[in-house]
Amino acid sequence: MNPSPSPHLILGGARSGKSTYAEALVRTFSPPYRYVATAEILDEEMARRVAEHQSRRGDSWRTVECPLALSETLVQLDAEPAPVLVDCLTLWYSNLLLRSGENRARVSVTALCDALSSMRSPVLLVSNEVGCGIVPENALARSYRDLAGWANQQVAKACRAVTYVIAGIPIALKPR
Amino acid sequence: MNPSPSPHLILGGARSGKSTYAEALVRTFSPPYRYVATAEILDEEMARRVAEHQSRRGDSWRTVECPLALSETLVQLDAEPAPVLVDCLTLWYSNLLLRSGENRARVSVTALCDALSSMRSPVLLVSNEVGCGIVPENALARSYRDLAGWANQQVAKACRAVTYVIAGIPIALKPR
Amino acid sequence: MNPSPSPHLILGGARSGKSTYAEALVRTFSPPYRYVATAEILDEEMARRVAEHQSRRGDSWRTVECPLALSETLVQLDAEPAPVLVDCLTLWYSNLLLRSGENRARVSVTALCDALSSMRSPVLLVSNEVGCGIVPENALARSYRDLAGWANQQVAKACRAVTYVIAGIPIALKPR
Repeated sequence: MNPSPSPHLILGGARSGKSTYAEALVRTFSPPYRYVATAEILDEEMARRVAEHQSRRGDSWRTVECPLALSETLVQLDAEPAPVLVDCLTLWYSNLLLRSGENRARVSVTALCDALSSMRSPVLLVSNEVGCGIVPENALARSYRDLAGWANQQVAKACRAVTYVIAGIPIALKPR
Repeated sequence: MNPSPSPHLILGGARSGKSTYAEALVRTFSPPYRYVATAEILDEEMARRVAEHQSRRGDSWRTVECPLALSETLVQLDAEPAPVLVDCLTLWYSNLLLRSGENRARVSVTALCDALSSMRSPVLLVSNEVGCGIVPENALARSYRDLAGWANQQVAKACRAVTYVIAGIPIALKPR
Repeated sequence: MNPSPSPHLILGGARSGKSTYAEALVRTFSPPYRYVATAEILDEEMARRVAEHQSRRGDSWRTVECPLALSETLVQLDAEPAPVLVDCLTLWYSNLLLRSGENRARVSVTALCDALSSMRSPVLLVSNEVGCGIVPENALARSYRDLAGWANQQVAKACRAVTYVIAGIPIALKPR
């Protein structure tokens, strides 16, 4: 497999196999790899999910926890170029929204897109599609859904490749 | 860009870029353009969304508010043929369901499909995918989800073109 | 139309037309047909849905109710090979989760995948995409969403063909 184009956005539903696919794409490059985890481990359920994901990866990965300052972290990591997997953007959007509100969240997403354009390291980013259910009754969930949909569009535009994963099957959306 | 085939259904999740894409398709025709808004402006959140959409469009657009009588409105507009954008069907389905119940809503959707087949004006219609989340706990939301899924199928069948938008990227479903 | 490859997974949102499409695929084979219904008829709403689905099928179908023991039922039916439609897996996942918990549900899904590999009968399976909405607030719904996403991946891997249906339009995901 040739190295994946970069930056590359991997989108899909929950448990669609998008993280597994993204990790396979990272392995098309030479190690060491960086795993940028946006999850804040706040409860046992989350701890279990993070542990599951880590056990699937191996020794050639270094994990960097980054719930908020994503563009800054990517720029710092790029001082020593190496393939980076960001997993996942949807949790990052949620962290931004809860800490700083919608307007500042959008500024951070724009900063991420700018950072992506100047990275020497290959960057793969995982994100969820969250807008294909019923309109949520909860106003915060609606704001989040709007932010995530808008942000996924911006990141898709900033990426050279976008792949959608359904039931473990990758579908190339860009380039096609 | 050649004029878009018509009628044309543009489907996608919330904030997937479907309205922006549909507006670009309308602009493949000559102005003036008609914007058929199905939203009923009942609260501030909705007013803000409508204002955002209007500010993106320009002077060559005339807005027609149409929460319910969609097939009648399209037939009337067609007296002076000009490109029409209907945004969005999912709100229209919701208005129909709340005002007239599921059975009469289905009659109205069938009337829309009949009207589409006889229009001289190019017609582009935007609709949401709402059936790819968890089954809603609320019975009305389940009825709505069933209606919207059924109705999107009917409109897709009545259209010469159907496009699905993910993260701003259009995917042609029909013709392919 | 040539007979559909088998096993074949047909995925889609609620009311996306996936059952209708799957029935058309079954009819590419010679009758008689078996319809394996995973629904447990617990209330009037469910009874109405089941009746609607049955009225659409005709006399050449025999219905087998199977809320739980799916791999065993498929193996038994295969004693006299004939085309089988399983509708739908998502209800089956839900039945498994509620009766036996997540770990035993996963064992049953793995047993289904094993059974699929040895069937002489053509088998078509319908399942819902449920992971493209907002994260559910309810912990059981989150477990269900995780199970369904994981299980759809396993079944997709065990199938020779996977099709995704949007608004009644089938999109071949595998083979492509």
